[in-house]
Amino acid sequence: MKEARRRFTQSEYSERQHKTRQAMQTAGLDLLIVYDPANMNWLTGYDAWSFYTHQCVVIGSDDTLFWYGRGIDRVGAGLTTDLPDTDIIAYPDHYVQSPDIHPMEYLADILKQKQLHTKQIGIEKDNYYFSARAAESLYNTLPDATFSDATALVNWQRAVKSSQELSYMRTAGSIIGKVYEHILDVVTPDMRKNELAAEISHAAITGTPDAYGDYTSIVPLIGLREEAATSHMTWDNEVLGHDSGMFIEIAAAHARYHCPCSRTLYLGTPTPQYRDVEKVINECIEVSLEKFKPGVTCGEVASTFFNTLKKHGYEKENRCGYPIGLSYPPDWGERTMSLRTSDTTVLEENMTLHFMPALWLEGWGFETTESIVVTESGGECLSHVPRELLVKD
Amino acid sequence: MKEARRRFTQSEYSERQHKTRQAMQTAGLDLLIVYDPANMNWLTGYDAWSFYTHQCVVIGSDDTLFWYGRGIDRVGAGLTTDLPDTDIIAYPDHYVQSPDIHPMEYLADILKQKQLHTKQIGIEKDNYYFSARAAESLYNTLPDATFSDATALVNWQRAVKSSQELSYMRTAGSIIGKVYEHILDVVTPDMRKNELAAEISHAAITGTPDAYGDYTSIVPLIGLREEAATSHMTWDNEVLGHDSGMFIEIAAAHARYHCPCSRTLYLGTPTPQYRDVEKVINECIEVSLEKFKPGVTCGEVASTFFNTLKKHGYEKENRCGYPIGLSYPPDWGERTMSLRTSDTTVLEENMTLHFMPALWLEGWGFETTESIVVTESGGECLSHVPRELLVKD
Repeated sequence: MKEARRRFTQSEYSERQHKTRQAMQTAGLDLLIVYDPANMNWLTGYDAWSFYTHQCVVIGSDDTLFWYGRGIDRVGAGLTTDLPDTDIIAYPDHYVQSPDIHPMEYLADILKQKQLHTKQIGIEKDNYYFSARAAESLYNTLPDATFSDATALVNWQRAVKSSQELSYMRTAGSIIGKVYEHILDVVTPDMRKNELAAEISHAAITGTPDAYGDYTSIVPLIGLREEAATSHMTWDNEVLGHDSGMFIEIAAAHARYHCPCSRTLYLGTPTPQYRDVEKVINECIEVSLEKFKPGVTCGEVASTFFNTLKKHGYEKENRCGYPIGLSYPPDWGERTMSLRTSDTTVLEENMTLHFMPALWLEGWGFETTESIVVTESGGECLSHVPRELLVKD
Repeated sequence: MKEARRRFTQSEYSERQHKTRQAMQTAGLDLLIVYDPANMNWLTGYDAWSFYTHQCVVIGSDDTLFWYGRGIDRVGAGLTTDLPDTDIIAYPDHYVQSPDIHPMEYLADILKQKQLHTKQIGIEKDNYYFSARAAESLYNTLPDATFSDATALVNWQRAVKSSQELSYMRTAGSIIGKVYEHILDVVTPDMRKNELAAEISHAAITGTPDAYGDYTSIVPLIGLREEAATSHMTWDNEVLGHDSGMFIEIAAAHARYHCPCSRTLYLGTPTPQYRDVEKVINECIEVSLEKFKPGVTCGEVASTFFNTLKKHGYEKENRCGYPIGLSYPPDWGERTMSLRTSDTTVLEENMTLHFMPALWLEGWGFETTESIVVTESGGECLSHVPRELLVKD
């Protein structure tokens, strides 16, 4: 690994690999093919925007551990991981995006050479970038292996954060604070949505004097006027306008660790409707924050939130949060537990979640969200953006 | 569709659906489940950052055409498509990222209700976001259907661009011109990589006075010094430095249409090595550009390039280009043809490709790339960034 790029000690990586091997043992796996780019990074440090072609980290219950990817990315694997050269294995370029041959077929040959082709192999059947064809290529070329689904096996190992991970997430929290200060400095009713997105991106990547901003796994989502009734809209050149409300769903990132934080912004004098929801959501957050303690279940947190919301006459038909940390596009969530009433996962100290009591209502919407670390005394926010409806006249 | 968001006429969308249905007929398909977000957009206009959860467009050889996705995205589907409400079908939120139930199981029930469960169904086995579990959920819940691989079926229909599509790509070309002007204005040896990335992002999203910049499907890739020997590295806070070279691999986008354009930048007085490669690559581009004519194969273009390069003593072991147009993260390529010697695809008028004669050498690298439209008189560049080593003293 290029030393300047080292984000964690070698012993932290070793511990992660050890934890993963233990979980593999419990699941009866000899070998795990790890496709999720965040899992690849967490296990080895590998960091590059190369996940648009097939690549993986292969980890064994023995000491097997190698990076597998496209030839033009192998130098990058050397710069960002501690793997020896012999454990950085590349496939030839004509396997890239070919209808006739698949990189997983070439991997099958490598597993055969390594006498790993008769093993119990875990694959991430529903993690990003592991396609149906990748799976079927493996099934066809490794007839003597047994495959089982290990989706989220590594993701679950990532749930409780180390102190270095928390430190990166707090750094991301400082950056998102700067981003909101900048938004309030520059936003005007004449501004266009894309200009606001440009300002947000610039501030988030610039970071603070002490820490650079990394790219975030989701681009700024700006729900302006009627678009606030839905999710995941991005931007065009629409003018923000006078007397208009919008939610801004954004994050900052540092060393791939994220701190999402959404706020609602009103340009003009907010209508009573906005002020009412602001009050309700803030009460919901206050009450729910206390629940982010070790021993409490995700379902209990969710129920606390949904009940408080209902008391005020509002309903929300979707989950109110999910775990966060290290991630790559298309999602900054970790895809393990969810804050929904049916989720029985028990919270542990230093788990980190994006508490997301967003309301997408009839013709408008409201978002105030917080990124939270679970502590003995309840949820601690990773960022300190004023928890209020942001107003600019 | 919200009228201000209309990017193409209704008849252009109808034509695309018609072309797709014809290709389905040739492939013997009654139904096609379209997961690739770019294909979903191309067929219906749907545009949102919602592809981190399972979603698709289902198109039939009859008049079946519906959007299927998560409940919180259905209003967005109404704002960005012309589909009637009855053809915007959502699954309940507890299907999101659940280990026990899968959105494709819920889709299977819908297909049964619509009497489409015994059909010949195409699935995009190797397009983005169609996971192994999505496929297996369909196989298990639709035992009376027959499935076949339709990866890239829609992507191929997108290869030849309409005049409106070309107009958007030229707009993206104007934006990338502005981005490079801005880079040369602001870059200094004291600047950090993340600061350069922030400036690039700001300029690309701001766009021109006439046109907004959309987010690009890949973030700025900055290959500084030894990182230029590899691909897909992003940024940290390393100082660019005096007498240092770097490639900048970026694009601009408008209405999701992309124009990638890479250049190499030298801060200081370029070494003879840089000047030599600059001359070689420019000759390679000149010679190859003439080949981007209807009737020429991808293989012939690639051979022309590789032979010219070899004449000068350089070798490149990876493809030198790929088709571009409408796209979403993680890739701005269309994943159909490739500019490699073995590819026999015949170029047609108004196909668009990113010609990518990048050299990743021993300890350094060089990129000058062009986005090109195929015309009767050879390749026409979609942007007009000076084709030279960019130098700032």
